Amino acid sequence: MDALSGSPAALAGEPEVIDLNADVGESFGRWQLGDDEALLPHLSSANVACGFHAGDPATLRRTVARAAALSVTVGAQVGYRDLAGFGRRFIDVAPDDLRADVLYQLGALEGLARASGTRVAYLKPHGALYHALRSDRGQAEAVVQAVLDFGGLPVLGFPGAVVLDLATEAGLPVVAEGFADRAYRSDGTLVPRTEPGALLTDPDAVAAQAAALASDGAVGSLCVHGDSPDAPALAAAVRRGLESAGMRIAAFA
Amino acid sequence: MDALSGSPAALAGEPEVIDLNADVGESFGRWQLGDDEALLPHLSSANVACGFHAGDPATLRRTVARAAALSVTVGAQVGYRDLAGFGRRFIDVAPDDLRADVLYQLGALEGLARASGTRVAYLKPHGALYHALRSDRGQAEAVVQAVLDFGGLPVLGFPGAVVLDLATEAGLPVVAEGFADRAYRSDGTLVPRTEPGALLTDPDAVAAQAAALASDGAVGSLCVHGDSPDAPALAAAVRRGLESAGMRIAAFA
Amino acid sequence: MDALSGSPAALAGEPEVIDLNADVGESFGRWQLGDDEALLPHLSSANVACGFHAGDPATLRRTVARAAALSVTVGAQVGYRDLAGFGRRFIDVAPDDLRADVLYQLGALEGLARASGTRVAYLKPHGALYHALRSDRGQAEAVVQAVLDFGGLPVLGFPGAVVLDLATEAGLPVVAEGFADRAYRSDGTLVPRTEPGALLTDPDAVAAQAAALASDGAVGSLCVHGDSPDAPALAAAVRRGLESAGMRIAAFA
Amino acid sequence: MDALSGSPAALAGEPEVIDLNADVGESFGRWQLGDDEALLPHLSSANVACGFHAGDPATLRRTVARAAALSVTVGAQVGYRDLAGFGRRFIDVAPDDLRADVLYQLGALEGLARASGTRVAYLKPHGALYHALRSDRGQAEAVVQAVLDFGGLPVLGFPGAVVLDLATEAGLPVVAEGFADRAYRSDGTLVPRTEPGALLTDPDAVAAQAAALASDGAVGSLCVHGDSPDAPALAAAVRRGLESAGMRIAAFA
Repeated sequence: MDALSGSPAALAGEPEVIDLNADVGESFGRWQLGDDEALLPHLSSANVACGFHAGDPATLRRTVARAAALSVTVGAQVGYRDLAGFGRRFIDVAPDDLRADVLYQLGALEGLARASGTRVAYLKPHGALYHALRSDRGQAEAVVQAVLDFGGLPVLGFPGAVVLDLATEAGLPVVAEGFADRAYRSDGTLVPRTEPGALLTDPDAVAAQAAALASDGAVGSLCVHGDSPDAPALAAAVRRGLESAGMRIAAFA
Repeated sequence: MDALSGSPAALAGEPEVIDLNADVGESFGRWQLGDDEALLPHLSSANVACGFHAGDPATLRRTVARAAALSVTVGAQVGYRDLAGFGRRFIDVAPDDLRADVLYQLGALEGLARASGTRVAYLKPHGALYHALRSDRGQAEAVVQAVLDFGGLPVLGFPGAVVLDLATEAGLPVVAEGFADRAYRSDGTLVPRTEPGALLTDPDAVAAQAAALASDGAVGSLCVHGDSPDAPALAAAVRRGLESAGMRIAAFA
Repeated sequence: MDALSGSPAALAGEPEVIDLNADVGESFGRWQLGDDEALLPHLSSANVACGFHAGDPATLRRTVARAAALSVTVGAQVGYRDLAGFGRRFIDVAPDDLRADVLYQLGALEGLARASGTRVAYLKPHGALYHALRSDRGQAEAVVQAVLDFGGLPVLGFPGAVVLDLATEAGLPVVAEGFADRAYRSDGTLVPRTEPGALLTDPDAVAAQAAALASDGAVGSLCVHGDSPDAPALAAAVRRGLESAGMRIAAFA
Repeated sequence: MDALSGSPAALAGEPEVIDLNADVGESFGRWQLGDDEALLPHLSSANVACGFHAGDPATLRRTVARAAALSVTVGAQVGYRDLAGFGRRFIDVAPDDLRADVLYQLGALEGLARASGTRVAYLKPHGALYHALRSDRGQAEAVVQAVLDFGGLPVLGFPGAVVLDLATEAGLPVVAEGFADRAYRSDGTLVPRTEPGALLTDPDAVAAQAAALASDGAVGSLCVHGDSPDAPALAAAVRRGLESAGMRIAAFA
C-alpha cells in the first residue's frame, strides 16, 4: 500500500492527521435514514450513496450540495443493486456487470457533485460489497477496473482487503480504515454485528477507541456509522477526542 | 431557436447536412431489444438509454463503446424512472425530483462514455417524457436546469416543443427532429400510434419521407425508431435516400 | 352507494358504529416508516401496503400478523408501481396494466394474510391512485375489474369518487371516508397539503373533527394518517373522542 | 421422497406417465422473452414467473389465462428479487426475508390464476435460487416454510436437492426433474453452461434424451428451457418422442 493507507510519520511539531468518514445520502424518496444535516459538519469525508443500495437522485443532490458547502470531501459509496436489501446481501454479480454497475454509480454521483461545484474524490464500497471485496478477487478486480475506467480515485477499505492490494498494484492510492464504534477482537477483526457488544454506543468509549486507532497509525481514516440516531453525537465525540489527543482531522483525498 | 435547429442554408457547392438518430441501448439484463450492432453503423447520432426506462449498465457500456468505435455521436436518452412501463407512461414527477433524475442519468452515461473515450454530446428525452416536454412547462424547465447543471448540452426534441423554447432562452443549442418512419398529418402533427398507418414500414416510403423532411429544412435531425426488427434496414434505406438526394449525414453535436 | 357507505340510522339504544382506518406496513427493507406497533391497537381497519409503493414482503408479513393478533381488519392498500415516489405521483398506467397490477397486489397480500389466519377484507387505493380514482374513469374501471377478478371486496374511497360509483354499479360494497387530521373547506373538499393548516396536529382538534364527521353520518370510516410521528397519539385521541361521543368503533368489513 | 418424485411403477397395460414443464411468463413490460403462445400447447406444466426475476402482472395474467384455456397446469416459478440479473445471481437473502418473498410471489400468482379459473398447483424455484436450494439448507427451509404458509404445494426440483428432502420431511409432495435439452455427465450432474455442448439443440437428440430420462424412471418431470427461439420446436419434439415411446404426458399436480 502506498503512503495514503498507513500512518504518515508525524513531522516534528506537526499534528498527526486523520480522516473521519461516515455514510450519508442513504434516504430514499419518502424514507428518511440518518440525520445528514447534523452529521456532515463533524466529518472530513462523506461516503455518499449512489442510488443502487440507497439514495434517490434528489436526496443525493442535496447531500453533495451540503457537503460541498461545508467543504466536506465527497466519496462514492457504491453498492450492489439491491434497494430491498439495502446492499447488505452478497450478490454473486459477474465481474463485467459489477464493473459497469460501479462505473455507472461513479458517473451518476459525479454528475450531481459537479453541479454543486465539487467532485467525487474517492470510492468506498458499501455493505455486503465492502465485505466481499476483502476476499473476492473477481469482484475486487471489477471494482478496481471501474475506478480505472473512471480515471482513477483513491479507494477506502478494510485493512488487508484484497481490493486494496489490487488497487495498489494498479497504481491507485488506498486508505485503510478503522471503526470508531465497532468492537474489535484481539486479532484485529470486528466482533460480528450478531454478537452482543458489537456496536459501541457510549460516546466516551467511541472517542477513546477512535484516538487509540488513530495514534496506532495502522489506519488513515476512521468510520462512524451514519444510520443510528446517535451518529451526530458520536461523530462529535470522536472529533473532540481526536483533537484533544492533538490530532488534526482532514480528508485524505 | 438557434441555427442548429433549422435548416442551415446550404452554401453554394456544399451538400446539405442532416443528422440521423435512433434509440439504442434499450436492452435490460436478460432482455434484448433492438439490434444495436446492425443499427449503429447507419447512424450519425445514437440516443443511448440511461438506465431509468431501459439499459442496464453493462449494456450501456457496450453500446457507448460500439458507438465510439464507429464515431457515432452519443446522446443521453433520459426518461422517467419506470422500467415496467419502458418510460412510456406519463409520471407527474415534481420538477426538483425530475431535475435530479435527469442529472443523475446524464452523469451515469457520461461516466460510461468517458471510459470509451467519448462523451455525452446531447440530450434527447424518451417516450412519455419526450411528449410531456412538448407542453409541460414545469417538467421542461426541470430538464433544462439539469442540462445547465451538467454544464450545457444541445437538446433534441419535437419541433415547437416547450423544452426547445426554454433551452434556447437558456442559451442552449436546440435541434428539432422529424420522424422518417412515422406518418404525418397535413398540419404537421404525427398520426397517433393507435391509428392504422401510423408507422411507415416500407423502406422506400421511409426513405422518401426522410428526404422530403430533410430538404424541407424544418428539422436538423431525422429519427428512425430503433426497436423494430426492421430498424437497421430502414436506417440503411434512409441513409441511401438522403445520400441519393445529395445530402450529407453528420451529427449535429 | 349502498348502506355501507353512509350513516346507518342508529337504532334506538344502539351506539352509532364508525370505522377507524390508517395506513400501515409502509416500511421498506432498511427504511422504517410509521410506528405500526403503537398505531395498530387503536384501529379497527388497517390499510396494509402491498409492495408497489411501499412494504417489503417481510414487513407486510409482520404487519398482517400483528393486525390479525389484534383482531384488526386487514385491507389492501394498493398503489402505483413507484417506490421512488411512494405512490404519490400520478402515473398514466393503461387500464389493462393497472387491472393486473392491482390484482397482483391483492393476491400477494392475501397470501401473506392467510398465513396469519386472516384475509384481505377490503381495498383502499393509495396516494396518487386514490386521488386519480376520484375522477379518472379508465383507471377506476380497472380497479373495480381487479376487485371483481379477485372475487369481490368492499372498496374504501373519497366521498363521491368515481371508483365508488363504479364499484356500486358492479355490486360491490363501498365505504366513503373522512379525514380526521386534514382540514376541510366549507365545500367539503380538503385543504391542499401545500397550504398552511392543511394538516391538523392538535389531538383535541383532531378528535373533535372526527366526532363531527362521524356524527354527521356522511362517512362510514375515518382515516388517521399513519406516517407522522404523532399518528398513534392522534389515533388514540380520535378513538377516545368517538367513544366519549357515544360511538362504537368497529371495522366495516 | 414420496411416490410423486420417482417412477410410478407402470401397471400392466397402462402407459408410463411423465410431466413436461417449461418456464413461461418471463417477458417484462416492453421486453419480450420466449414464445409462450407457441410453447404452451406442448406442455403439461407451465412454470410461470412471479414478478421478482421476470414477469410483469399483465404478462403473468395473460400467461395463466392461456395456460388455463389449454388445461396446462400452472406452477409458481419463484425467484430472487433481481430483475437486472433475471434471478440468475445468488443472493444471500436471510431466510425470514426469503420466506416472505416466496409467499408474496405465491399469493400474487394465485390471485392472477384464480381470475382465470385456475390455481397455482406447484412451486418450482428459478435460476440461482433453484441451484442454491440443492445445498443451502437455510434458504431451502425458508422456501419449504413459505409453501407450508401457503397451505402446501408440491415442490419441483433437482434430484437430490436439499429442498426436496426438507419438503418431503414436511409432508409435501416432491417431484424430481430431468433436463431434456441439457447435457449430463456420467455422474448425473449437468455439464455447466459455460462448457461447450452444455445445451442440446438438435430436436432428435433432445427427444432421445427425454425418452431415456423418462423411461429410466428417476424423474417425474422433464424440463425444456423456454427462453430459446427453438423452445416450441424442441418441446414438440420431446412430446413426439415420449409418445412414440409409449408414454403419456400429464401434469404431476
